[in-house]
Amino acid sequence: MSDKPLVGILMGSDSDYEIMAEAARALKSFGIPYEMQVSSAHRSPARTAGYARQARERGIRALIIGAGAAAHLAGVVSAETTLPVIGVPIDSSALKGLDALLATVQMPAGIPVATMAIGKAGARNAGIFAAQLLGASDEQMAAKLADFKADMAEKVAVKSDALQERLAADGL
Amino acid sequence: MSDKPLVGILMGSDSDYEIMAEAARALKSFGIPYEMQVSSAHRSPARTAGYARQARERGIRALIIGAGAAAHLAGVVSAETTLPVIGVPIDSSALKGLDALLATVQMPAGIPVATMAIGKAGARNAGIFAAQLLGASDEQMAAKLADFKADMAEKVAVKSDALQERLAADGL
Amino acid sequence: MSDKPLVGILMGSDSDYEIMAEAARALKSFGIPYEMQVSSAHRSPARTAGYARQARERGIRALIIGAGAAAHLAGVVSAETTLPVIGVPIDSSALKGLDALLATVQMPAGIPVATMAIGKAGARNAGIFAAQLLGASDEQMAAKLADFKADMAEKVAVKSDALQERLAADGL
Amino acid sequence: MSDKPLVGILMGSDSDYEIMAEAARALKSFGIPYEMQVSSAHRSPARTAGYARQARERGIRALIIGAGAAAHLAGVVSAETTLPVIGVPIDSSALKGLDALLATVQMPAGIPVATMAIGKAGARNAGIFAAQLLGASDEQMAAKLADFKADMAEKVAVKSDALQERLAADGL
Amino acid sequence: MSDKPLVGILMGSDSDYEIMAEAARALKSFGIPYEMQVSSAHRSPARTAGYARQARERGIRALIIGAGAAAHLAGVVSAETTLPVIGVPIDSSALKGLDALLATVQMPAGIPVATMAIGKAGARNAGIFAAQLLGASDEQMAAKLADFKADMAEKVAVKSDALQERLAADGL
Amino acid sequence: MSDKPLVGILMGSDSDYEIMAEAARALKSFGIPYEMQVSSAHRSPARTAGYARQARERGIRALIIGAGAAAHLAGVVSAETTLPVIGVPIDSSALKGLDALLATVQMPAGIPVATMAIGKAGARNAGIFAAQLLGASDEQMAAKLADFKADMAEKVAVKSDALQERLAADGL
Amino acid sequence: MSDKPLVGILMGSDSDYEIMAEAARALKSFGIPYEMQVSSAHRSPARTAGYARQARERGIRALIIGAGAAAHLAGVVSAETTLPVIGVPIDSSALKGLDALLATVQMPAGIPVATMAIGKAGARNAGIFAAQLLGASDEQMAAKLADFKADMAEKVAVKSDALQERLAADGL
Amino acid sequence: MSDKPLVGILMGSDSDYEIMAEAARALKSFGIPYEMQVSSAHRSPARTAGYARQARERGIRALIIGAGAAAHLAGVVSAETTLPVIGVPIDSSALKGLDALLATVQMPAGIPVATMAIGKAGARNAGIFAAQLLGASDEQMAAKLADFKADMAEKVAVKSDALQERLAADGL
Repeated sequence: MSDKPLVGILMGSDSDYEIMAEAARALKSFGIPYEMQVSSAHRSPARTAGYARQARERGIRALIIGAGAAAHLAGVVSAETTLPVIGVPIDSSALKGLDALLATVQMPAGIPVATMAIGKAGARNAGIFAAQLLGASDEQMAAKLADFKADMAEKVAVKSDALQERLAADGL
Repeated sequence: MSDKPLVGILMGSDSDYEIMAEAARALKSFGIPYEMQVSSAHRSPARTAGYARQARERGIRALIIGAGAAAHLAGVVSAETTLPVIGVPIDSSALKGLDALLATVQMPAGIPVATMAIGKAGARNAGIFAAQLLGASDEQMAAKLADFKADMAEKVAVKSDALQERLAADGL
Repeated sequence: MSDKPLVGILMGSDSDYEIMAEAARALKSFGIPYEMQVSSAHRSPARTAGYARQARERGIRALIIGAGAAAHLAGVVSAETTLPVIGVPIDSSALKGLDALLATVQMPAGIPVATMAIGKAGARNAGIFAAQLLGASDEQMAAKLADFKADMAEKVAVKSDALQERLAADGL
Repeated sequence: MSDKPLVGILMGSDSDYEIMAEAARALKSFGIPYEMQVSSAHRSPARTAGYARQARERGIRALIIGAGAAAHLAGVVSAETTLPVIGVPIDSSALKGLDALLATVQMPAGIPVATMAIGKAGARNAGIFAAQLLGASDEQMAAKLADFKADMAEKVAVKSDALQERLAADGL
Repeated sequence: MSDKPLVGILMGSDSDYEIMAEAARALKSFGIPYEMQVSSAHRSPARTAGYARQARERGIRALIIGAGAAAHLAGVVSAETTLPVIGVPIDSSALKGLDALLATVQMPAGIPVATMAIGKAGARNAGIFAAQLLGASDEQMAAKLADFKADMAEKVAVKSDALQERLAADGL
Repeated sequence: MSDKPLVGILMGSDSDYEIMAEAARALKSFGIPYEMQVSSAHRSPARTAGYARQARERGIRALIIGAGAAAHLAGVVSAETTLPVIGVPIDSSALKGLDALLATVQMPAGIPVATMAIGKAGARNAGIFAAQLLGASDEQMAAKLADFKADMAEKVAVKSDALQERLAADGL
Repeated sequence: MSDKPLVGILMGSDSDYEIMAEAARALKSFGIPYEMQVSSAHRSPARTAGYARQARERGIRALIIGAGAAAHLAGVVSAETTLPVIGVPIDSSALKGLDALLATVQMPAGIPVATMAIGKAGARNAGIFAAQLLGASDEQMAAKLADFKADMAEKVAVKSDALQERLAADGL
Repeated sequence: MSDKPLVGILMGSDSDYEIMAEAARALKSFGIPYEMQVSSAHRSPARTAGYARQARERGIRALIIGAGAAAHLAGVVSAETTLPVIGVPIDSSALKGLDALLATVQMPAGIPVATMAIGKAGARNAGIFAAQLLGASDEQMAAKLADFKADMAEKVAVKSDALQERLAADGL
C-alpha cells in the first residue's frame, strides 16, 4: 500500500509469506497502511534490530511478527522497541508449530509478545488485533470493527441456513 | 486507583487474584488507571457479556483477561467487544496451564486474543503490553516505556556484577 | 428429520459438517429427531446464547456441540442452559485437535461438558450417547441400544472370520 | 443415601475416594440418591462387568466412573451397559492425568464415555451432569439446576465485590 | 499356520490388520505357530474375555494385542489371563498413537502389559519378543534369535557399504 | 535371595533403587530368585554390555531394566542379548518420565523392549510380568499367578465394603 | 571426500540418508573432509562401539550422529569416546521426532550429546556446528564462518526486496 | 578462576545461577578457565550482542548459555558469533522446561545451538562438552576426559556393590 505504513509486518523467512499475507489482507480490509519485510532473528540480527529500533520514529504503531520453529523473532524485536509486538507462530517444523508457539508466547516478564494462534488464523487475527489496537482510541476504526463483527455474525446465520440444504441432500 | 479506568482486568475466579495482581502492579507503575473484577465465562455469562459490551463506552481502552483450565473467558470477551483483549493463561489444573494456554491462544480467525505467557510473567507482561498499546500514539507513555527498558538493562548489569561475589563465595 | 427435534446439533463452522454429520447419522439410526445449525461462540455470540437459552423450552433434551481449535462453543452453550451438553472436539488446527480437546473437556466445576473423542468417532458417539441419555428412563430406546450393542458384537465375529481369508491370501 | 440409588459411582481404587466424593456431594446437593463402590477394570474384571450389566435393572440411570493412569474403567463399563457412562480422569501417575484423560475420552465409535475434566472439577461436574441428564425431562430437577446456575452467577458478583477490598488492602 | 498355535494375536479392529501382520511375519520367520483374531474390548467384551480366559488351556503361551485410540484391549485381556500380554499401540486417531501408547503402557500395579513401540515397528517387535519369551528356556529358539541378531548386524554393514555409492553419486 | 538368579534387575543409577525395589518385591512374592545391580548405558558401557552378553549363560531368563531421562539402558541391553528385556521408565527429570517412556518404548524393529508404566507401578508390573513369562510353560507358577489374581479381586471387594464406612463418616 | 576425514557422520539406518546428507553438504561447503557410515545402536552394537572407540585415533575430531524413534545412537557413541558428539533427532515415527529429540537430548550428567533441531535443519546445523568447533581455534575456518554469516544476512535482504514484487503481484 | 577465560558462561537471569554453577564446576574440574555473566536476550539485548560479538577476539573459544521459558538467549548469541554455542534449557515456567528446550534446540538451518538436557544434568554436560570441544585437538585434555570416563565407570561398580548391602538391609 502506498500510504505511510502504520503497521510493520516482519517474517523470519520468505517461506512464511503465504501465512503472513493473511495479516496484510486483514489490515488492507480495514484500510490500514502497512509494510512487509523479511528479517531473521538469527540470520540477519543487525537488520532485525535496526528495523525494530527505527520503527517508532518511522511512524509505525504496531509490529506483526511471524516465525516458525525456535521462533525468536517476535521476542527479539520486542526487546528493541517500545511498540506493541504481535507474534504469529508458524507451523514449519516436525513439531507442527508447538515449538513456535511456546517460543513466541512464553516471554519472560518485562518484554511482552502478544501471541496469536498458530498459522493462517493467527496471522489474520494479528491484522485484526492491530486494527483493534489502533481503534482503541479511534472511533472511525472502532466503527469499522463493529461492522466487521456484525458481518461475521450475519455470515454465520447465512451458513446455517445453507447447511439445511446440505442436510436434505444427504438425507439427514 | 481512583482515576477513570483505561484498562479493565477481569479474572474467571478470585483464586486467580495473586497472578492477576501482577498486571495491576505493572499498570500502576506506568500510571495507568485500571479496574479489576471477577467474572466467569461459564458461571456468570450475562455479567461477562455485559461487562464486555459496555467497556468501550465506559472509556476502557484495553482488557486484560486471566483464566485457567478450559480458559474461555478472554475469547468470550473478545466476541463481545471491538477493544483489544489481552489473555493471560493461568496454571490452575493438573495440566499445568497447557490447557489454559491452548484455550486462550488458538482463537479462530476473526476474534483475536493477544495471549501472554502462562502465570505471573504473563500477567505482568499483559500490564506492560497495555502500556505499549496505549503508548503506540502517546509520546509520554512511550518515554516511560523507554525508561523502563533502560532500567531493565541496567539491572541486568548490576546483577551480573553481583554474581561475581557469589561465584567467589562458592569458589567458582 | 421432520419430527420436533429432541436433540440440537450445533457446530462452530460449516467446515465441521462432515464430522458432525456422524452425530446426525447415529441419531437417525435410533429414530431420534434432531436439528442441526451453525453457530459460533465467537463470531455469533448472541445467536449462540439465544439458541442455548431457548433450547429447553423448544423441547430439546440434549445438545451436541462440535468445535475446533480454542473450542469454546460447548462450554459457552453449557453456561446458558441446564440441558446436558455433549462436546465433540474437532481436529482443525496445526495441533491436531489436542487444543480442541483440552478447551472442551477441562471445564471448571459448575458447568459440565460431556466430552467425546476427537473427530468422527466422537461425533458418532455423541449421537449414541444422546440416545443413551434419552434411553436412561425409556425402555424402548434401551431395547434399541441393546440391539445396537448385540449387532456390534456380532460384526466383530464376522470380521474376525473374514480376517482368516486375508491371512491365507497373504500366506500368514 | 438411603433411597434406591439412581446413580452409581464407581472408582478403580479407594485412593480415588477424595476426588470422587465431589461427585457424591454434587448429587447429594440435588437430592439424587446414589451408591458408591470400588471396582477395578483390571484387578476385578468380573465384579466390574457384573456391576455394569445389572445396573439398569437395579434402577440405576447413569454411571459415574473415576480412574487414573491407563484409565480403562469407564470404557469397560460402557462396553457392558446401555446406560450413559460419565468418565472422570484422575491424576494419579507421573503424567499428571494426561494418560487418564486420553484413555477415558478417546473411545472408538460405538461405545461412548462422556468425559469430564481431570480431577475434582471433573468429579463435581460428573455429579452435576448426572443431574442435567436426569433433569432433561424432569421439570423439578431442571428448576433445581436453574437455581444452582443463578446461585453461581450471584456468587461471582459477591466475590468480585470482595476483591475490591483485597485490592485496596494491597494498595492496588 | 497349521500347527497348534503358541501365540494368539488379537486386534481391536480389522483396520489394524496391516500393522498386526508384522507380528505374524515375525512369528512365522521364527517358526512359531500363531492364530490371529479380531476382538474388541468395547464392541465385543464377552468374546474378548472368553478368548483371554481360555487361551492358556488352549495351549497359547503369549498374547499379542494391537489397538488404537483409547486402547483398552491389551489391559482388558491381561485382566483375564495369567499369560504374558504384549501390547502394540496403533496410530489410528488424530493424536497419532500417543493416546494408544499411554492407554496401553500406563497399567496400574498388578496387571502388566508389555508395551512395544507405536505401529509397525512395535508389531514386528511384539513377534520377536514372543520368540524371546518362548526362547528364554529353549536353546533352539535362542539359537534362531542369535542368528537373527547376527543377520541384522551384517545387514547394517552391507547397507553402510552401499551408502558409499550413494554418496559418490550425490557428489558428497 | 540366595538361589541362582533367574531374573536380573539392572538400574542406571542407585538413585533408582526405591523404584526398582518394587520389582524385587514382586519377584520375591512369587519365589523367583533374582539379582540386582547398577550399570549405566552411558557411564559404564562395557560393564553393561558384558552383563547383557553373559546373562543367558549364567542362567538368567529375563532382564528387568530401569532408567530415567534419555533412558537408553533397556535398549542397549536388548541389543546385546536374546533374552526378553523388560523396561521400566523412571521419572527423574523435569519432563516427569515422558522422556524415559519414549526412549524406552519407541524401539526400532528388531530389538524389542517390553515397556511397563512409568515408576513404581511399572517396576512392580515388571516383576509380575517376569513371573508370567516364566509361568508361560510352568503350571506351578501359573497357579501362583492365578492365586495372585484372585487375591487382587478379593481385596477390591473388601476395599469397596470399607468405603461404605468412609462415606457414612463423611455424611455422603 | 578424499582427504582424511575430520568428521564422522553416523546414521542408525540408511533411510536417514536424505536427512543426514545435509550435514555432509554443510561440511563440504566449509572444505571439511568427512566420512559417512550406517551403524545402529541396537542392530549392530559392536560395530557402533568399535567405530566410536577408534574414531579419535583415526584422526576424527567430531562425530555427527543421526537417529530416529528411541534414538540411542548418539548417546551410545558418546559413552564410548571423548570426542564431541553432535546428535540429530530424525522424524521417523508416529510421534514426529519428539521421541527422537527427547531420547537424544535428555542425556544424564557425564555423557553429553550436543543436540540439534529435528530433521534437515538440525542435520545442516550439525555440519555448521562441527565447522564452528573446528574453527574455535582456527582463524581460517573462523573467517569462512564469518563469510557464511555475512552471506546469510545478505540473502535475507535480497529476499526481502524480492518479497515486494510478490506483494505487488498479489495486490497487497 | 583467574586465568584468561576460554569459556564464557551466560545466563538470562541470576535466578539461573544454581543450575549454571554446574557448568562452572565441570569446567573447573578440567582446569578450564571460564567467566560467568548475566545477560538477557530481551532485557539487555545490546549487552548480549556486544558480549557475543567480542567473545572470540577476547580469547573465548566456546560459549555456554542457560535460559528458561521462551529461551532465546542461546540462539541470539549464536546469531552474533562464529564460536560454538552450547545451550542449556532451564525449567523455570509452568511448562517444566519443555518451552525452554524447544526454544533452544529447534534452531533454523544456519545458526546452530548445541543443546543439552534440561536443568542441572544439562549444565554439567555443557561444561564437559566444552572440555571435549577444546580437547578435540588437545591430547592433554583428551587424557583428562579419558580419566573422567574411567572414573565414572568405576564409580558405577562401587555403587552396584554398595547396593547389595541395601538389598540385604531391606530383606530383598
